Amino acid sequence: MLGPEPPRHRVVIIGGGFAGLEAARALKGAEADVVLLDRNNYHCFQPLLYQVATAALSPGEIAWPIRYLLRGQRNLAVYQTEVQGIALATKLVYAGRHAFAFDHLVIATGATHSYFGHPEWAEHAPGLKRIEDATAIRRRVLCAFEEAELAPADEQARLLTFVVVGGGPTGVEMAGAIAEMAHLSLRRDFRRIDTAKARIILIEAGPKILAAFPDDLSNYTAQALVGLGVEVLLGKTVERCVREGVIVQGVLVPASVTIWAAGVKASPAAAWLGAQADRAGRIIVGEDLSLPGHPEVFVVGDVAAVAGGKGRPVPGIAPAAKQMGGYVGRVIADRVAGRPSPRPFRYRHQGDLATIGRNKAVVSLGERKLTGRIAWLFWSVAHVYFLIEARSRLAVAVDWTWSYVTNRRGARRIVGEETAASHTGLPAAKSKAEPLNL
Amino acid sequence: MLGPEPPRHRVVIIGGGFAGLEAARALKGAEADVVLLDRNNYHCFQPLLYQVATAALSPGEIAWPIRYLLRGQRNLAVYQTEVQGIALATKLVYAGRHAFAFDHLVIATGATHSYFGHPEWAEHAPGLKRIEDATAIRRRVLCAFEEAELAPADEQARLLTFVVVGGGPTGVEMAGAIAEMAHLSLRRDFRRIDTAKARIILIEAGPKILAAFPDDLSNYTAQALVGLGVEVLLGKTVERCVREGVIVQGVLVPASVTIWAAGVKASPAAAWLGAQADRAGRIIVGEDLSLPGHPEVFVVGDVAAVAGGKGRPVPGIAPAAKQMGGYVGRVIADRVAGRPSPRPFRYRHQGDLATIGRNKAVVSLGERKLTGRIAWLFWSVAHVYFLIEARSRLAVAVDWTWSYVTNRRGARRIVGEETAASHTGLPAAKSKAEPLNL
Repeated sequence: MLGPEPPRHRVVIIGGGFAGLEAARALKGAEADVVLLDRNNYHCFQPLLYQVATAALSPGEIAWPIRYLLRGQRNLAVYQTEVQGIALATKLVYAGRHAFAFDHLVIATGATHSYFGHPEWAEHAPGLKRIEDATAIRRRVLCAFEEAELAPADEQARLLTFVVVGGGPTGVEMAGAIAEMAHLSLRRDFRRIDTAKARIILIEAGPKILAAFPDDLSNYTAQALVGLGVEVLLGKTVERCVREGVIVQGVLVPASVTIWAAGVKASPAAAWLGAQADRAGRIIVGEDLSLPGHPEVFVVGDVAAVAGGKGRPVPGIAPAAKQMGGYVGRVIADRVAGRPSPRPFRYRHQGDLATIGRNKAVVSLGERKLTGRIAWLFWSVAHVYFLIEARSRLAVAVDWTWSYVTNRRGARRIVGEETAASHTGLPAAKSKAEPLNL
Repeated sequence: MLGPEPPRHRVVIIGGGFAGLEAARALKGAEADVVLLDRNNYHCFQPLLYQVATAALSPGEIAWPIRYLLRGQRNLAVYQTEVQGIALATKLVYAGRHAFAFDHLVIATGATHSYFGHPEWAEHAPGLKRIEDATAIRRRVLCAFEEAELAPADEQARLLTFVVVGGGPTGVEMAGAIAEMAHLSLRRDFRRIDTAKARIILIEAGPKILAAFPDDLSNYTAQALVGLGVEVLLGKTVERCVREGVIVQGVLVPASVTIWAAGVKASPAAAWLGAQADRAGRIIVGEDLSLPGHPEVFVVGDVAAVAGGKGRPVPGIAPAAKQMGGYVGRVIADRVAGRPSPRPFRYRHQGDLATIGRNKAVVSLGERKLTGRIAWLFWSVAHVYFLIEARSRLAVAVDWTWSYVTNRRGARRIVGEETAASHTGLPAAKSKAEPLNL
């Protein structure tokens, strides 16, 4: 007599970012039950978060329910739950009230921003990794203009000063977008302040912005930012972030809003596993992206430290995460099917792109370099193309076309707990009201 | 010699809802400096809030910056600030650190939901008046499905029960939209639960739903809701809202989400003024909508108690608020220009409409009554038409067309502080994890 049928092979994927989604997709049709766990119910298209933070797009245009994106995949279930730990010996992932058994595990838990050992700066200088970060920054930036419109003249300068820390693509995009907002989009809407007088200061500790790009593109970007009215400070380190602004070389730069785009650290998966990690907390993996000594556990995306070609590490960008996720999904599918494993993971760098503002971007594709309007069109088309859902592509294209034609921004609601006065370092309402001289 | 030029006439409008905006618009070109104060920076199109609460639209599609909507009006300034009080003797409005002087004042501060003296119910049964309410309800509804997908079978029934208290247009629209979401939009996305088994219970204390409508339309609506799978309870009073559900006739109806659409009360402007108010806190005004004894102070919109035709009060709906705001703006403009004042305010009731679901709505226009698809088309066209901004009209039309064709909902992110487990009455995570039987 035959015994009961053996249970199907079980794959657990932790994280529904670019890497986790690609791993799930590569397992479509595999003879396995796949479970994807994420603490959110949505996938966020992080490369466009800065547009939510600067009121150009709504959160709904760059985030979609994970279970909706993977709805066609019958061998897959999605659960919204937060992972607390992993037991490698018993092959269980602990999350909420449950323990999920796995035969293969894919860890794709991503990264968050790092304040270099100063988590207390987070309150004064939010980073930009999640939808909540983007709407919080949007609230602060918009509130600063609202407050300045009401404030006495001597307070307006500080209220209209915005500091962006870090000159990578996110910092460049934020600085450029805030400058365009102040100098173009908002001008007609205010009466007492001239929004064009806003100061936007981009501070980079290294010798150039966009460190990953060729020098000429970095220089072009710096000049383009200056042309938009951004003050670019190179080789300057922010020593401290405080309520009133940032300390640079011992001196306070007063600012109402500081945005942190300077460093990232991996999510705490290395601690769950007791695994070896690099300085940024990323798990050091083998050439097939598996955890050393555990061929059934894979680590992909921003939480993995992988050597790329020419001794350089694989960068923390969306295409790299997708390549890793897809590779691991195929490795597992092959193993389940009894096929020979593919070759080691090999990262193919497709290029770097960053947008600066209207008609201004930089693109580096191997030997080819683009700047200006052609680069900006390339960037726009590439991003609309990679947006996942057909409806969002259309909605974003409509929004961008509208913004381009009218110079306006569509997502300017201030929502949430913080009131206009609660975050920009203003003293609490004085007991005696002053008549406002209109 | 001539003395200094006298200051321009000053008008202060408190509130940027339908009434306040219309008052501001009617003052365009008047020889007056107009100031509009609102605690938010945006105008919210309240009639479509339920669509945000049920993930069909994004907040950005129904809310726009007030200063953007009024940008063309050079005699007007908009300030985001919260009013604390009004001094009628000195003609000052106190807000934040400032006092705004007025010659004419327009109070358009609206209404909020009322729990009939039980504010403690708000935590368990949120109402639907603000953008934050809508996103909070969206979070609870979506989290209930997410939790049920992970929960043991004996907890699923409660998690998939939704109670709507109050059978007015908002209650009908919410119940219908949740039913369609459960029975149509979400079905393919879940694996362990059948979302079509969700219970949606609409509880109305009176003898019929849509009390303002003719009986045949009320009956049609009740039947249409039952057809969508909604349980309609008439003549039943909710005695208490608790964490686990609602108490009706001494018995607990277990539910994961309760939505309060039963009562409204006016904002506290009557207390600021020491004015006479009706039971709902609305200020009783004269036939020109002015405060008795204060011809320079007007009260408009949901915060005003106005006798309509045939002894019935003017209803708390958007067209009524707009008529009042426009009327008062014209009265002030005429006074400033030295023109004779127009006749007393006269409310013109244009009709009542409510949508139930896909292809189902009711419209009552005087003697004319519409139901079914034609009413639904009328409702859709009317709402898209009244959406203020050209871009939002287009965006909403695209979203609705897409949803109609695909039966899907575009705005299904769960964001915010509450985690999936924190609001639906579940016990905190148990100390011992149970392996999940997939």
